[in-house]
Amino acid sequence: MRIDSQQPHGSRIDPYVGHYAARARGMLASEIRALFAVAARPEVVSFAGGSPYVTALPLDVIGDMAGQLISGRGSVAMQYCPAHGDPGLREKICEVMALEGIHAHPDDVVVTVGSQQALDLITRIFIDPGDVVLVEAPSYVGALGAFAAYQANVVHVPMDDDGLIPEALDEKVRSLAAAGQRVKFLYTVPNFHNPAGVTLALPRRRRILEICAAAGLLVVEDNPYGLLGFDGEPLRALRADDPEGVVYLGTFSKTFASGVRVGWAAAPPAVRDKLILAAESAVLCHSSLAQLLVREYLYTQPWRDQVKIFRELYQQRRDAMLGALDAVMPGGCHWTRPAGGFYVWLQLPDGLDSKAMLPRAVSSRVAYVPGTGFYADGQGAEHMRLSYCFPEPDRIREGVRRLAGVIEAEIELRDTFGSGGTHGNVGVDTPGPEVA
Amino acid sequence: MRIDSQQPHGSRIDPYVGHYAARARGMLASEIRALFAVAARPEVVSFAGGSPYVTALPLDVIGDMAGQLISGRGSVAMQYCPAHGDPGLREKICEVMALEGIHAHPDDVVVTVGSQQALDLITRIFIDPGDVVLVEAPSYVGALGAFAAYQANVVHVPMDDDGLIPEALDEKVRSLAAAGQRVKFLYTVPNFHNPAGVTLALPRRRRILEICAAAGLLVVEDNPYGLLGFDGEPLRALRADDPEGVVYLGTFSKTFASGVRVGWAAAPPAVRDKLILAAESAVLCHSSLAQLLVREYLYTQPWRDQVKIFRELYQQRRDAMLGALDAVMPGGCHWTRPAGGFYVWLQLPDGLDSKAMLPRAVSSRVAYVPGTGFYADGQGAEHMRLSYCFPEPDRIREGVRRLAGVIEAEIELRDTFGSGGTHGNVGVDTPGPEVA
Repeated sequence: MRIDSQQPHGSRIDPYVGHYAARARGMLASEIRALFAVAARPEVVSFAGGSPYVTALPLDVIGDMAGQLISGRGSVAMQYCPAHGDPGLREKICEVMALEGIHAHPDDVVVTVGSQQALDLITRIFIDPGDVVLVEAPSYVGALGAFAAYQANVVHVPMDDDGLIPEALDEKVRSLAAAGQRVKFLYTVPNFHNPAGVTLALPRRRRILEICAAAGLLVVEDNPYGLLGFDGEPLRALRADDPEGVVYLGTFSKTFASGVRVGWAAAPPAVRDKLILAAESAVLCHSSLAQLLVREYLYTQPWRDQVKIFRELYQQRRDAMLGALDAVMPGGCHWTRPAGGFYVWLQLPDGLDSKAMLPRAVSSRVAYVPGTGFYADGQGAEHMRLSYCFPEPDRIREGVRRLAGVIEAEIELRDTFGSGGTHGNVGVDTPGPEVA
Repeated sequence: MRIDSQQPHGSRIDPYVGHYAARARGMLASEIRALFAVAARPEVVSFAGGSPYVTALPLDVIGDMAGQLISGRGSVAMQYCPAHGDPGLREKICEVMALEGIHAHPDDVVVTVGSQQALDLITRIFIDPGDVVLVEAPSYVGALGAFAAYQANVVHVPMDDDGLIPEALDEKVRSLAAAGQRVKFLYTVPNFHNPAGVTLALPRRRRILEICAAAGLLVVEDNPYGLLGFDGEPLRALRADDPEGVVYLGTFSKTFASGVRVGWAAAPPAVRDKLILAAESAVLCHSSLAQLLVREYLYTQPWRDQVKIFRELYQQRRDAMLGALDAVMPGGCHWTRPAGGFYVWLQLPDGLDSKAMLPRAVSSRVAYVPGTGFYADGQGAEHMRLSYCFPEPDRIREGVRRLAGVIEAEIELRDTFGSGGTHGNVGVDTPGPEVA
């Protein structure tokens, strides 16, 4: 059936409804997307986004750099490049990873369209429908989206304030093996976790590598925030201690600019070869312009000082958020105290539901991401993710005050009418790039 | 088994060999890749690449534009954007498509990382393993790579000098239906075909739409070269006559710059919604910087005049190539006469094999892409693709002379020792982005 294209857009019957691939059946827009459009209005304090504060960059300098790149080296910057990525950029990426104890060769690195593409490609080459991916509970919403797109069976492993719990991982690995399940990899965000805000304690790291090595399980170490720790030197990466057992994912989205979409994977050689082939079939190659701009920035600018500027800026905002939470949140709320990165993970008092509450919060001009998006199994209704990366400290304090008011009103409703129960929805509920 | 990472890179046993997804098993590097690295040397005349001649762009102007974009609007250009793509860019994309008779709304358009990503995402949402995709014989190597990555069953349909043959399509659709096969879409490059160099005759277009509509078959119209026709106005797109039945793929890689990786899909609303969700799980969103640069270029620069400059430049090169082929190719060679785009498709005399001959050609300092890469079924050994887009006319003439010498020597060998037979290799043999 064909329908006249002059009708309102997006409102008609889908003639292809029986034609989609099995993997597309789970691709449904989150019902909270419309709310995020409202949350983007200036009067709303949004704790929803994971957008870095890019105006802290020396934009004039970077602008000049981009201009000279195109006028002086346009025949390269405006042309295709190898799918592996620009060799000079890959060298600098090795220097960046060296800060976390990783000794990598530029050949080990594949440049990707943000680390999201690295997640997509890793899943593409390893996951058949039904294969298990182990993830933390909660886990990064974008990773869950990539795993769902390849019909992975996502199994959560508990965390505590020191990150993933090795004993829980070990037990899960054993029970899955006993059940005859094919487990393909562990996906972990060890530093300044998105969304949980916790960091994997150093003694646990060696233990987790041992458990995975014993089970022949690849580790996918996703580390967007590793350089954004507030208390001293970067922590040693998992890959530093097991380059053959770990695929490391990095990105310049949080330490430089998300708008260039430059991330990478550092992988064992055979995996790297497959990643390159998968990248070619996915996008041919990434933008030369974006890659050369990042390379030039790393070669010519004091990028470590810029990371320090970001770190101090986010630390102030973290302090503003924790201070405000301590001051105004009603009893029964609990939250994590991140030592870096962008996120606080807040638990509501019993009987409150973060997704049901969101429309009221947005009406009160404050937004967050409900916790259900960070689980593949319907958990999380009593949680929310609060990002402190983007609003200025005064706005953060104002936003927390508004949020406290909303929660207090919810508690009052609960005490008057009883709990409405939580709306646990099983499945990935991706709210889009605005919450990356 | 873990191996010390200080060994030479890429030379060791793969500990994950039993762990890959079924779809990754076909991901093998083409054995001709190494030759393309050699072919990139300046002494080699390369007819292999599909790289546009970007130095014909006003690089100073574009450099200034990029500089101002970052310094003046860096808070947007350096930040995440919606996965749907920048709204202003999508408006301009509708203007571009209007040149081919398409009436589209900006909401119909999804911006992608080159049109390669649009191919990947369309395949992702429609293809379960074993589903049939109909393609021309030959077909674009990058599309075959994307289809293979999702384990599609690629079925070729014959072409002639007027493009895809409607009767052959009709017959194939009927026989596949009779055999109970699930056919998901027809993939076609109607204008200045890559690699065949032919154009789908206008009277055939309506007929092909009718055949596909009757069979409930989506058409994927890939049109990178539509504005690069040498003889008059752009041809009417398939989508112009059936917006509900056609997903149109476009790109700025050939009319602006491949290094920004900005392409798009214009799709019926339900398909568009799934493409956006698929794009989010694949890359979150495309680079804002790349998108805004293209948008700014389209808004402020005389881009139609620039397309005319490209058209005239490629026409001169086409003329240089056809003139040289006419003058020096030995008898028994046949080739197409493209009316636009980048490619000539050459058939060798009986008993010659383009892939077996390639090392000798590269030794003689000329390169091309062997025909087998453009088929999923082992055909094409007697063909090669010659690109005239990148070398200057004098170099093209010199390259054709060298190629004629190589072919003559092969004919002599054949006449002395007999034919070695062709090395038809079934499966996709992707040579990488350098031959896009």
